[in-house]
Amino acid sequence: MFSHVKELQYNAKPDRPDPVYAKKLQEILGGQFGEMSVMMQYLFQGWNCRADQKYKDMILDIGTEEIAHVEMIATMIAQLLDGAPAREQDEIVGQNPAVEAVLGGMNPQHVIVSGIGATPTDSVGYPWNSRYIISSGNLLADFRANLNAESQGRLQVCRLYESTTDPGVRDMLSFLIARDTMHQNQWMAAIEELEKNQKAVVPSTFPQHLENQQVNYSFMNFSQGEESAEGRWASGKTLDGQSEFDYIANPTAMGQVPKLQPAPAYIHGTVEPGQIIPGTEQANFEQNQQGNDLH
Amino acid sequence: MFSHVKELQYNAKPDRPDPVYAKKLQEILGGQFGEMSVMMQYLFQGWNCRADQKYKDMILDIGTEEIAHVEMIATMIAQLLDGAPAREQDEIVGQNPAVEAVLGGMNPQHVIVSGIGATPTDSVGYPWNSRYIISSGNLLADFRANLNAESQGRLQVCRLYESTTDPGVRDMLSFLIARDTMHQNQWMAAIEELEKNQKAVVPSTFPQHLENQQVNYSFMNFSQGEESAEGRWASGKTLDGQSEFDYIANPTAMGQVPKLQPAPAYIHGTVEPGQIIPGTEQANFEQNQQGNDLH
Amino acid sequence: MFSHVKELQYNAKPDRPDPVYAKKLQEILGGQFGEMSVMMQYLFQGWNCRADQKYKDMILDIGTEEIAHVEMIATMIAQLLDGAPAREQDEIVGQNPAVEAVLGGMNPQHVIVSGIGATPTDSVGYPWNSRYIISSGNLLADFRANLNAESQGRLQVCRLYESTTDPGVRDMLSFLIARDTMHQNQWMAAIEELEKNQKAVVPSTFPQHLENQQVNYSFMNFSQGEESAEGRWASGKTLDGQSEFDYIANPTAMGQVPKLQPAPAYIHGTVEPGQIIPGTEQANFEQNQQGNDLH
Amino acid sequence: MFSHVKELQYNAKPDRPDPVYAKKLQEILGGQFGEMSVMMQYLFQGWNCRADQKYKDMILDIGTEEIAHVEMIATMIAQLLDGAPAREQDEIVGQNPAVEAVLGGMNPQHVIVSGIGATPTDSVGYPWNSRYIISSGNLLADFRANLNAESQGRLQVCRLYESTTDPGVRDMLSFLIARDTMHQNQWMAAIEELEKNQKAVVPSTFPQHLENQQVNYSFMNFSQGEESAEGRWASGKTLDGQSEFDYIANPTAMGQVPKLQPAPAYIHGTVEPGQIIPGTEQANFEQNQQGNDLH
Amino acid sequence: MFSHVKELQYNAKPDRPDPVYAKKLQEILGGQFGEMSVMMQYLFQGWNCRADQKYKDMILDIGTEEIAHVEMIATMIAQLLDGAPAREQDEIVGQNPAVEAVLGGMNPQHVIVSGIGATPTDSVGYPWNSRYIISSGNLLADFRANLNAESQGRLQVCRLYESTTDPGVRDMLSFLIARDTMHQNQWMAAIEELEKNQKAVVPSTFPQHLENQQVNYSFMNFSQGEESAEGRWASGKTLDGQSEFDYIANPTAMGQVPKLQPAPAYIHGTVEPGQIIPGTEQANFEQNQQGNDLH
Amino acid sequence: MFSHVKELQYNAKPDRPDPVYAKKLQEILGGQFGEMSVMMQYLFQGWNCRADQKYKDMILDIGTEEIAHVEMIATMIAQLLDGAPAREQDEIVGQNPAVEAVLGGMNPQHVIVSGIGATPTDSVGYPWNSRYIISSGNLLADFRANLNAESQGRLQVCRLYESTTDPGVRDMLSFLIARDTMHQNQWMAAIEELEKNQKAVVPSTFPQHLENQQVNYSFMNFSQGEESAEGRWASGKTLDGQSEFDYIANPTAMGQVPKLQPAPAYIHGTVEPGQIIPGTEQANFEQNQQGNDLH
Repeated sequence: MFSHVKELQYNAKPDRPDPVYAKKLQEILGGQFGEMSVMMQYLFQGWNCRADQKYKDMILDIGTEEIAHVEMIATMIAQLLDGAPAREQDEIVGQNPAVEAVLGGMNPQHVIVSGIGATPTDSVGYPWNSRYIISSGNLLADFRANLNAESQGRLQVCRLYESTTDPGVRDMLSFLIARDTMHQNQWMAAIEELEKNQKAVVPSTFPQHLENQQVNYSFMNFSQGEESAEGRWASGKTLDGQSEFDYIANPTAMGQVPKLQPAPAYIHGTVEPGQIIPGTEQANFEQNQQGNDLH
Repeated sequence: MFSHVKELQYNAKPDRPDPVYAKKLQEILGGQFGEMSVMMQYLFQGWNCRADQKYKDMILDIGTEEIAHVEMIATMIAQLLDGAPAREQDEIVGQNPAVEAVLGGMNPQHVIVSGIGATPTDSVGYPWNSRYIISSGNLLADFRANLNAESQGRLQVCRLYESTTDPGVRDMLSFLIARDTMHQNQWMAAIEELEKNQKAVVPSTFPQHLENQQVNYSFMNFSQGEESAEGRWASGKTLDGQSEFDYIANPTAMGQVPKLQPAPAYIHGTVEPGQIIPGTEQANFEQNQQGNDLH
Repeated sequence: MFSHVKELQYNAKPDRPDPVYAKKLQEILGGQFGEMSVMMQYLFQGWNCRADQKYKDMILDIGTEEIAHVEMIATMIAQLLDGAPAREQDEIVGQNPAVEAVLGGMNPQHVIVSGIGATPTDSVGYPWNSRYIISSGNLLADFRANLNAESQGRLQVCRLYESTTDPGVRDMLSFLIARDTMHQNQWMAAIEELEKNQKAVVPSTFPQHLENQQVNYSFMNFSQGEESAEGRWASGKTLDGQSEFDYIANPTAMGQVPKLQPAPAYIHGTVEPGQIIPGTEQANFEQNQQGNDLH
Repeated sequence: MFSHVKELQYNAKPDRPDPVYAKKLQEILGGQFGEMSVMMQYLFQGWNCRADQKYKDMILDIGTEEIAHVEMIATMIAQLLDGAPAREQDEIVGQNPAVEAVLGGMNPQHVIVSGIGATPTDSVGYPWNSRYIISSGNLLADFRANLNAESQGRLQVCRLYESTTDPGVRDMLSFLIARDTMHQNQWMAAIEELEKNQKAVVPSTFPQHLENQQVNYSFMNFSQGEESAEGRWASGKTLDGQSEFDYIANPTAMGQVPKLQPAPAYIHGTVEPGQIIPGTEQANFEQNQQGNDLH
Repeated sequence: MFSHVKELQYNAKPDRPDPVYAKKLQEILGGQFGEMSVMMQYLFQGWNCRADQKYKDMILDIGTEEIAHVEMIATMIAQLLDGAPAREQDEIVGQNPAVEAVLGGMNPQHVIVSGIGATPTDSVGYPWNSRYIISSGNLLADFRANLNAESQGRLQVCRLYESTTDPGVRDMLSFLIARDTMHQNQWMAAIEELEKNQKAVVPSTFPQHLENQQVNYSFMNFSQGEESAEGRWASGKTLDGQSEFDYIANPTAMGQVPKLQPAPAYIHGTVEPGQIIPGTEQANFEQNQQGNDLH
Repeated sequence: MFSHVKELQYNAKPDRPDPVYAKKLQEILGGQFGEMSVMMQYLFQGWNCRADQKYKDMILDIGTEEIAHVEMIATMIAQLLDGAPAREQDEIVGQNPAVEAVLGGMNPQHVIVSGIGATPTDSVGYPWNSRYIISSGNLLADFRANLNAESQGRLQVCRLYESTTDPGVRDMLSFLIARDTMHQNQWMAAIEELEKNQKAVVPSTFPQHLENQQVNYSFMNFSQGEESAEGRWASGKTLDGQSEFDYIANPTAMGQVPKLQPAPAYIHGTVEPGQIIPGTEQANFEQNQQGNDLH
């Protein structure tokens, strides 16, 4: 169960309205790697957690914090939208380029749909959807998802920091960047803890002898040229400590030439001209016709 | 530019048709973490790559391999669909539970739409979409996305392996599981290489002094109870080597109580009864009325 | 800012696993009118609220409660999935219809993707998306959206109550049905309060004389037969108290026959054969050809 | 069955082209609460209607009218797009800000995809989808959905009216605003009629004693501070006439602390290091190994 | 403007309920090539039509007919859902496989969401969306889209015909199949008419000399083996009558090896370790530090 | 299996950056009829192909080529984005209209999300999804889909050609336009070949006598006025050579007036006031109450 305090986790006050920037800021609210994504990802991972309570607790702690981040950014966007122009008053389109530019750069739904409020969408107005998130039931897999989310997220916030000079906005972003620093560290720590006692490969419980033993540590070079041989992934000990990397310069096909059998008649696939397949309506009809002809 | 050879990378031949399993197998073809996702993710990362050529080459090598994986699974699904029942012949629904069960467990689009062919969708028939993938322009961020994708992917393939006893299907899955072992190792190796010369936090180029210095290494406990203090993330050196973890048992709000100003009149937000806002059509109208009354 | 307590708002314990029912229950978790929808709708309305603080507070109270409802249902689903079959052991498809039926009736992603955890999707596996919700900046409009959401929601929970006999599940649903009773009452009360001092038509601030005065209280019968004249909407005082309903048995068109002008050349629309439009590449080319011919 | 007359229901003629405004106007054509939504919502409610014929007739009458509204707005948009610039002729980007602003403010698909025609999308180009609409089989629930749709719709049209000064556009919007006035009144009237003979809570047929009797009329204050106690929803008779509102200042959790059991082995969830679960491939393998060792 | 008559265009009465088949039938109602698609595609093409009136009229005639097809199928589905089981009464899951099979094969939203009514979705419950349709402003292009839609549509209806033995359902499908025969003929006729006076390649108005003259009639064999040389597309006169097909057995790359320049600093892309880019916050900071050191 | 060569199929080098145009160019990369669509459509058709090998080979040849087209356009977009402005330096919004216009016209995700890289989306930022494509198992149906895709695609590329004057961009588009000329010819040739030996109506294998014989060659005029009688589709021999077109000026309804029966009680549909349905919880309750009263 949850409860709310009215103060924001951190200040969210722009120095001046900026409706064009409001549109951009939506990316870290309702985008693929925005705060709604980490909020919902952590909450679902926490609720589904079947492991030790310390994990469940930790995941829900950060999930609960992320609701507050969504709250901060939504509040910021609503204020950036103050003073958004609805139109040029009584002028022909294009005559006042400055106002036109703002109108062109805004998200029109910020006026028409949300009435200068934040929307649960990204910077192109695309709605948040839950296929952005994952809760797999395997914490090592999911913590890697979380580390990725915090990495993409911090990267985007940094780019947004560079895109404004408003001190109030930058103050809030500076807080979010700091929390993402912590959260990247947090998931790295949790990953280290899980990896310490099991193989690094997810899932560690699948019997290794059941996987194909010929190709599980080979880099395959599917292009002309071998620049890809220069990296750490092409030679040396594998990161799971089980083998050595192997570089295959010219990988060859190991499988069959696929040849599918014709579809049954009721599929009405591509058939040869005149071909009639037994047991179909067509065949029954032909048969009946012949029967009729016999009489 | 690309070219094609007719042989599959590895065998994809089921021992017997199984249209219900065909539906499940779609998950690793067109699902959130299916082969279409890694194929498109790697191709876009490769095409957008602005770093050293060895990275671009490596990423496109694996991207090109993944096209072959999509090909294998699509071929497998088409064969699993052979012999799919279209209906019970002339019987009342529910009379032949075995056939009904197969019909109920199949994806109906495998008959109606694709004519017993694979579809670019997941195991519930949801279409693949490109918001599943990321190419951010920052390779460390993206390699973490890739490691996550290969972890979720291998986990799902293992679950599908457990869900069938067909030797032909298991043979192909055994190959895919092995490649995912390699690919997890590959991304771990590439991550190690990138992290060696920079901070582990993405992006490493954002000036650290610009982030809020009070909260960038603190775990905040947003729940009653402190089980979350027991983990590696709550104390000790941070993983980026820059600080110590700090555990805040009772985090307090640092921000304002948000209070938004009323919307301008043209927004037609919630206004007080009888309130008339200057400059609006309503106000103009009232003013004109008064003017008229004066005459 | 938010905080979490570990207890659920109400018990969520099934008497026995039922993976087929788990799939159905997803509807009120991640469906169009599920708890994720009301949770996110209320939170965004609260964060965007520019009206009196009592509204903002009330909206966020209920939004915060709804997070707990999502938590309860997610927890319930995870437990209903315990014991989900991954496959029939070593048997041919269709041989054990009972197991097959369960497999056919389950959501395959409950095994493959979420590892017997709840997913943020509806009962057909379709992901939740934020176009389900509205925060318009006009509270009367939004409270009507909320009343609708609670009406559709309670209706769906009642249907799910009828679809199970599990006492534990029914106990939780009985709680949710009761809360929806309250929440319908709550929004009806808030609507009554807002309507008391303004016109019932949203938005009440648009000057009534600017709307077309001929059609604003007329029911138009766009079909053969006049059964539609029998309802309250066809005669008597209008509900906003401004006029009388008017029934137009045979509405006639009041507008023009639309006739669009041809598209400019660069659109490459449908043109007459041989037609060449001045200023186009084609025209320039023809002109140059003629010029060349002159020399 | 339907038929068409060539005249529009009302005039749809702009005084001048305005491709930037055409983009905005898309919101009420193909947006969440645009005319496509009400058109499809009413048609499906009508076709699915199992109640008295007067309801079916009335719903289909308004659904048929809404097709004409889509037609009017599509026609208007096509004309607003006349004269849309494809590019600046032979100039460097940014040199002619006025043209640039128009280009920036337009929807590029209005040129590239639809060839200066209307598209079935909203003002950010997001396609209309049928999860916007509801036909639940319970008319009281659905009429509340309809009242909401007409409230949000009229609000958006009013905002669009404020965003232009074109007399022709305003004339058409003035018609649509008037029809929405009628349609709000219509649904309010139909709701009043249905509520008169049953409880106001949807569905009225679920036995009231089966819902939890402790929480069905309580407002729960899930935040610090009690501003939310000031409203009509916190005290007095409930709107369904069955009880009194009850204000719970400090709601407490009534449920269990959730604790999920570990997942079965085939799920490959998070397991303790070294843990081997009986009946799994891993266990079988270990057992065989031991067996082999015995020999 | 449109009007409605209460009779269906053709009978839509099943002989018996069949909720599993109702799920399948949704494909031709709300699927990619269902009746909603052709209805909306034709209506938008008609409204956007800038060509001769006979085209606009013809397109709207068929668009209007398709609304009636949606109506028929929706009505059919609602009746097929009569008698849908909500649950087994008081029995353990899997005990009555026949009922379980029906439950497993049904779309759960047909009970929970639509209350045994048709839904605007396809056979896997995926909502219809308007990216299924096209109105390009070029009638030849669009008539090809229409011919495709009617081809895919008739194919799907035939497969559904094969999937049932219900005489009432088959009667309706027999009508729809016949109309699709007509509609395929209709679009072929309209295409023939348009192609007669212009080149067959869309758009015919783009100056042919501006397209690359080396590759516009060459088949390129991007695979090992030359089976693809055996078809009509590999030799002989091209279908637009402008040239001869040319078969390139080993196509070679004609373009550059792509090499992107590094991203500017504010992008925070992948940079070399220690590298500092002038003009960035980092560089400014370093510079200031040095400046401070000087004092 | 696939392999990669590092050279592009054709040059993709702009003369100068143009981030606004980069946004538009996305349409033919990730739009409904962009290169991702034809690439995935052809690959799936090839993998699912059950017809003669020459078809499978041909389809995969062109599918493989289309991957190279995606590569070219992605590379082009990345270069057009070089030099994209992140913000005006230290200026108030609207002061530098030229920069503002570029910012307004750009896709913000090109900076924030992809770091000046191409995205797998269309020109309004909407993600590519696999419901854009079709692989039906019937090649004649699918080749019509392909001809449509190449027609819409070439039309869009031509419009984009008109929207820029950059010689480098135009050079690449000139190549793509030429390939689309070939591909339209290719599909027309393949269609001609398939149609030669079977009826032109898809599918040709459905027994013609099973379709309704009264309406399969009739044009129905569902509007006032008969302009639609003037076309080739209204009279003369049908294109499948089986009949004559028939023009029905006033089509009449042939079906029933639909009348659905009331829903069962557990649906909680719209019921008459006071009505109690036997077998429901409500009825059981009433019965028990009466029983209790008897004692």
